[in-house]
Amino acid sequence: MNELLIDLDPGAKPALYEQIYESIRRDMIDGRFSRGERLPSSRQLAADLQVSRSTVDAAYAQLVSEGYLRSKRGSGYYACDISGLYHLTGADQNRLENRAEKRAKEPVEDFKYKYNFLPGQVDSSGFAYNAWRKASKEALLELETKGNLLAAGHPQGEYRLRSSVASYLYRARGVHCKPEQIIIGAGNEYLLQLLGQILGGPRLVAMESPTYLQAYDTFSNIGYKAAAVPMDQDGMRVEDIPKDGVTLAYVMPSHQFPLGCVMPLERRMQLLAWAEQREDCYIIEDDHDSEFRYKGRPVPSLQGMAHLDRVIYLGTFSNSIMPSIRISYMVLPLPLVPVYKRKCGFYASTVSRIQQMCVCQFMEAGAFERHLNKMRGIYRAKHDLLLAALKEKTWVNKIYGGYAGLHIAVELNSSLTEWELTQRAAEQGICIQGVSACYIGEAEQKGEKPVLLFGFGDLAPWQIRKGVDVLDGCLRKK
Amino acid sequence: MNELLIDLDPGAKPALYEQIYESIRRDMIDGRFSRGERLPSSRQLAADLQVSRSTVDAAYAQLVSEGYLRSKRGSGYYACDISGLYHLTGADQNRLENRAEKRAKEPVEDFKYKYNFLPGQVDSSGFAYNAWRKASKEALLELETKGNLLAAGHPQGEYRLRSSVASYLYRARGVHCKPEQIIIGAGNEYLLQLLGQILGGPRLVAMESPTYLQAYDTFSNIGYKAAAVPMDQDGMRVEDIPKDGVTLAYVMPSHQFPLGCVMPLERRMQLLAWAEQREDCYIIEDDHDSEFRYKGRPVPSLQGMAHLDRVIYLGTFSNSIMPSIRISYMVLPLPLVPVYKRKCGFYASTVSRIQQMCVCQFMEAGAFERHLNKMRGIYRAKHDLLLAALKEKTWVNKIYGGYAGLHIAVELNSSLTEWELTQRAAEQGICIQGVSACYIGEAEQKGEKPVLLFGFGDLAPWQIRKGVDVLDGCLRKK
Repeated sequence: MNELLIDLDPGAKPALYEQIYESIRRDMIDGRFSRGERLPSSRQLAADLQVSRSTVDAAYAQLVSEGYLRSKRGSGYYACDISGLYHLTGADQNRLENRAEKRAKEPVEDFKYKYNFLPGQVDSSGFAYNAWRKASKEALLELETKGNLLAAGHPQGEYRLRSSVASYLYRARGVHCKPEQIIIGAGNEYLLQLLGQILGGPRLVAMESPTYLQAYDTFSNIGYKAAAVPMDQDGMRVEDIPKDGVTLAYVMPSHQFPLGCVMPLERRMQLLAWAEQREDCYIIEDDHDSEFRYKGRPVPSLQGMAHLDRVIYLGTFSNSIMPSIRISYMVLPLPLVPVYKRKCGFYASTVSRIQQMCVCQFMEAGAFERHLNKMRGIYRAKHDLLLAALKEKTWVNKIYGGYAGLHIAVELNSSLTEWELTQRAAEQGICIQGVSACYIGEAEQKGEKPVLLFGFGDLAPWQIRKGVDVLDGCLRKK
Repeated sequence: MNELLIDLDPGAKPALYEQIYESIRRDMIDGRFSRGERLPSSRQLAADLQVSRSTVDAAYAQLVSEGYLRSKRGSGYYACDISGLYHLTGADQNRLENRAEKRAKEPVEDFKYKYNFLPGQVDSSGFAYNAWRKASKEALLELETKGNLLAAGHPQGEYRLRSSVASYLYRARGVHCKPEQIIIGAGNEYLLQLLGQILGGPRLVAMESPTYLQAYDTFSNIGYKAAAVPMDQDGMRVEDIPKDGVTLAYVMPSHQFPLGCVMPLERRMQLLAWAEQREDCYIIEDDHDSEFRYKGRPVPSLQGMAHLDRVIYLGTFSNSIMPSIRISYMVLPLPLVPVYKRKCGFYASTVSRIQQMCVCQFMEAGAFERHLNKMRGIYRAKHDLLLAALKEKTWVNKIYGGYAGLHIAVELNSSLTEWELTQRAAEQGICIQGVSACYIGEAEQKGEKPVLLFGFGDLAPWQIRKGVDVLDGCLRKK
């Protein structure tokens, strides 16, 4: 029998039994025990190390459960053949070094911009961390008490979450749907890809231009072609949708990205009538930016006013909870549900069940409602501040899409191009995007004025004021 | 000024300030205050209700932060216009009723099967709940201390997680890669869809038959066609891959699903040589079931032995952590990384950043290694028990794919068809799947013996023993 050389450090952070476990484990990996070799009894080792026997028992039990040792009743502990075991981590020291090394190699986020006006940022200081932590804890508790939650859940997402989403969409957005029509998925782009498989292809999609270009790129990747339809202040000009071949229209009627216009009733009716004209035509209503309005009631969804089953509704928790949670939802018209099940029903859900339960708890506890109302106040204050700062400036010609969402579009009086403007701004630490980046194909803006997008979600009040002032300097510079 | 009628219940669970908050909030929603109306001062209300002033202050502060009230310094609290606010939840009583109603409507999971032999189930009693809870807690702490973690992360997944995965894949599977080649994604099917967009299409894929049919269905959905290639005990017969048009081969060399064969060195070399023959040919190595081997060392990956950049490696945490976590990883050959970035780099990650950080913590703390080793012991015991139970039975003709993974394939001496067998088993409470369900197109098994798949991951020892006995009874019955 090998003598065990174990250096215990009673003052160290790992418990004594962990130190014994780690020491024996390391010896075994280093080949200090041959297969079948007997280890000292726990009584003997406890005496040698001057620790309690239960401490050694705990270490031995851990080693048995992980396959390093086996115990024979009344006879003691024996070394196993450990050639099939995983030894992923070295000693603690190495592990710490590895971690430090990893941290060092980790690409540092780009902090060269002092003022990040990119759209799609959410306020990080107002987030409901406490409520979220509580919801996470309850979700984990459910995981532990219901063992079957380890298994993949419903392909469309947890029924409970879909119920909460259906009820939220009805109350907040006027969407009419049953949980059975909802698919929870890992982001809008994923859901668009899934929709492509449900609808089949290739198809020709009518899109506004400028639009949410990630949707355009997703359509391209799945073999769909886009027809850029001219828009006015009411959104897509329905009469300009090409007569032939278009069977899908992608719109954002509540708050168009990037120009922020709201599609009025008349235009909506016109669009619905267009979809009605032939059997296989659908409207995709992307309602990604509808949560926050700072004047009056939110505009209800197109889906809720449609009398026909041709509107596919798409929404996300990116703005209402956080972008990094990667949870979106798609409401299919009832007749498409069996098509989805037949073609795509075999796909497991793309969202972790624990995260789904966490959102469930967050919604059921009322924390989601409180969070939305609190954030609305925070965003409105930022929005008002930005608007006030902009209104003073002589170079502001026209403001689009105010009083809603997390960005404002501004048309400038300037002889500079958008590209020149964003370059000058970048030199002064301002990250800002021009609207031309959102046009399909070549931006046909010849002779028109530049338009910049001012996202304000995660900017502090001083950054909003200072950012606009710095930009003012850039614009006045010859 | 309205008098406030607030019934406080000091013994109730919600804190007093929450009761005051909820009561005023409800009054406002019910229209009991007009816009601009002044509320009692906190001093006065505290006196009326006989609570401390700080309790009332807390309730008022909450109402202000959510946009119900606004405060004027030195003047008091005034009702806001709340027409734009969200009121998703009713009073507590209603909420509880709604919840109960939801629970009642929730489809009950199907417990009619006493013995679930379906493959792909993991053991739920041995899961490392404590370590997972600890990892979750640390991930949440990071979220709270680094506010920028609310924003969408790196499209390929957190760098730290990709580093851990790269190191795990190197140590455990012999995969050679840098974190830059890894894409973390929401499940294998999602990553195959993404790969389809990277490789472009349509393509003709060589697949074994029987195979993992979800992969086949995914390829079909993205417009790929499959060429079913005959297989022998060594896996895909490379010389039988059609000469024309096939530019992709999908294989599971470490443990083929469903038959469990391991592709030997010679066949692997042959497959790599096939891929080398033309510029645009790739091998997809799906290593989904490689974590658990019960005899000797795991078979290293094909990716690690390839000298050319034509192997795309695919793995998942479904078996090694849990299926419901929905995290898989794809290792792209270096030359494909810029293609991915160009075509698909705009897609945000499909995995929640908090869940990614949780897995990071789980791996870095060594809990993943401990969990794998512990589960290997648990699964080996179940595997051995199942094998022993099967070997006694006269109807067992041949056993495929033992000593690895979470299922065993068994060829039966029986005049019954697979369909008849599974029906008879179902009547006795046994859920079991035949291999014909895994064949591409029509199963061409005419005259051959039925093969059943025995998954054992989440069965208790008594269920394994009893399940095989009950099946024995079904088979003996005339």
